[in-house]
Amino acid sequence: MQGSATQGTRRQPPQHRAAYTPTDRTVPTRSADRASYDKDLVHSVLDEAYVCHLGFVRDGAPVVLPTLYARVGERLYVHGSTGSRPLRMTGRTDPGLPVCLTVTHVDALVLARSAFHHSINYRSVVVHGVAHDVTDPEEKRAALDALVDHVVPGRSHDVRPANNKELAATAVIRLDLDEVSAKARTGGANDEPEDLSLPHWAGVVPLHKGYDTPIADARLAPGTELPDHLAVLRG
Amino acid sequence: MQGSATQGTRRQPPQHRAAYTPTDRTVPTRSADRASYDKDLVHSVLDEAYVCHLGFVRDGAPVVLPTLYARVGERLYVHGSTGSRPLRMTGRTDPGLPVCLTVTHVDALVLARSAFHHSINYRSVVVHGVAHDVTDPEEKRAALDALVDHVVPGRSHDVRPANNKELAATAVIRLDLDEVSAKARTGGANDEPEDLSLPHWAGVVPLHKGYDTPIADARLAPGTELPDHLAVLRG
Repeated sequence: MQGSATQGTRRQPPQHRAAYTPTDRTVPTRSADRASYDKDLVHSVLDEAYVCHLGFVRDGAPVVLPTLYARVGERLYVHGSTGSRPLRMTGRTDPGLPVCLTVTHVDALVLARSAFHHSINYRSVVVHGVAHDVTDPEEKRAALDALVDHVVPGRSHDVRPANNKELAATAVIRLDLDEVSAKARTGGANDEPEDLSLPHWAGVVPLHKGYDTPIADARLAPGTELPDHLAVLRG
Repeated sequence: MQGSATQGTRRQPPQHRAAYTPTDRTVPTRSADRASYDKDLVHSVLDEAYVCHLGFVRDGAPVVLPTLYARVGERLYVHGSTGSRPLRMTGRTDPGLPVCLTVTHVDALVLARSAFHHSINYRSVVVHGVAHDVTDPEEKRAALDALVDHVVPGRSHDVRPANNKELAATAVIRLDLDEVSAKARTGGANDEPEDLSLPHWAGVVPLHKGYDTPIADARLAPGTELPDHLAVLRG
């Protein structure tokens, strides 16, 4: 709906809260009322997940791969083997690899009286930008710690840190949070008024996500207890 | 690791089970031992989820959007408003829109004694191909039923079907399962032998996913009970 009118123009974000500047790519053509550029919302969606779907173009065709990520301020980091395709391509591409990084939480099924109004409550963040190889050793080490701590907060202080060989085998890429939007659907079914009297159940089925009891490796060193940062996950 | 040796060649799949033929795009450069082309495995990963991440190329840059999908045999269907970008682009692109459709289940956190060997147990499917607009009314209606039933099996028989206006407002695209791979990691931490005596906890933390109690719409028609197909979700 907004498509052609906003081509190439930058809209003014709301001034009262820190927000990303909308662009043609981050203003959806549909359900624009569900879109947000609020930094706090974007950060909260990014920080609640740790697996993203990273898109890039290879030989003119799209590729989408799941991968771990972490946020440090206004930067996202993705890591992998130096041999993996997107990381290898980033190192070889000047000035970096155009990517789209997307994170999605599914919160509930929305069941309506009509097939047409079935939906999903979700929160997603889409980040457009150019990924750059992280070559500074200090930034790389901090990013790798962040990647471990993003999955389990506090974990990086209770493991053997990467040695030089491991650091050399790991590539890290950085993506600045600049062209970013969040999108969310909340609430119940939006049935047509004339459908309300139909005898079909309608409502919301919330999804439940959590962790089961940790399963210790059979060869733990004697006396090794479950650390606090993992006990927290059990709830 | 397999990269250059397999460029452009099609490998022979195992003959004992139905399998997709590997291609350069579906043989990973890393952890090729985690890749599979087994149709049963691919189908099971696809059928357990209902949100995918759909990648396409717009103005030369990648775009990745979360969306619902359904599988019918060897075809995947994605639907949306006729105004949404990938669906509009598919209808306007001859002979279809190159896409990459990826589905990921995160099954467990894998915590190792070393930062380097931290990992995730997951199952993912990556589908490369060209998406086509579904114009046949019968195929479109069947695809829309499948999209509802893919989220909640049996649901399409207990709702008001789409009317002509709703059908006209909905676009459906089809992606054949042809160039497909699954990838999975299972098992515990792969620590280095010399790290086994370190006093760090290692093991696996399984993820738990399920549904909470359905919340009925406040305006249900009198006497409308929770149907069996939803009661099943409560477990």
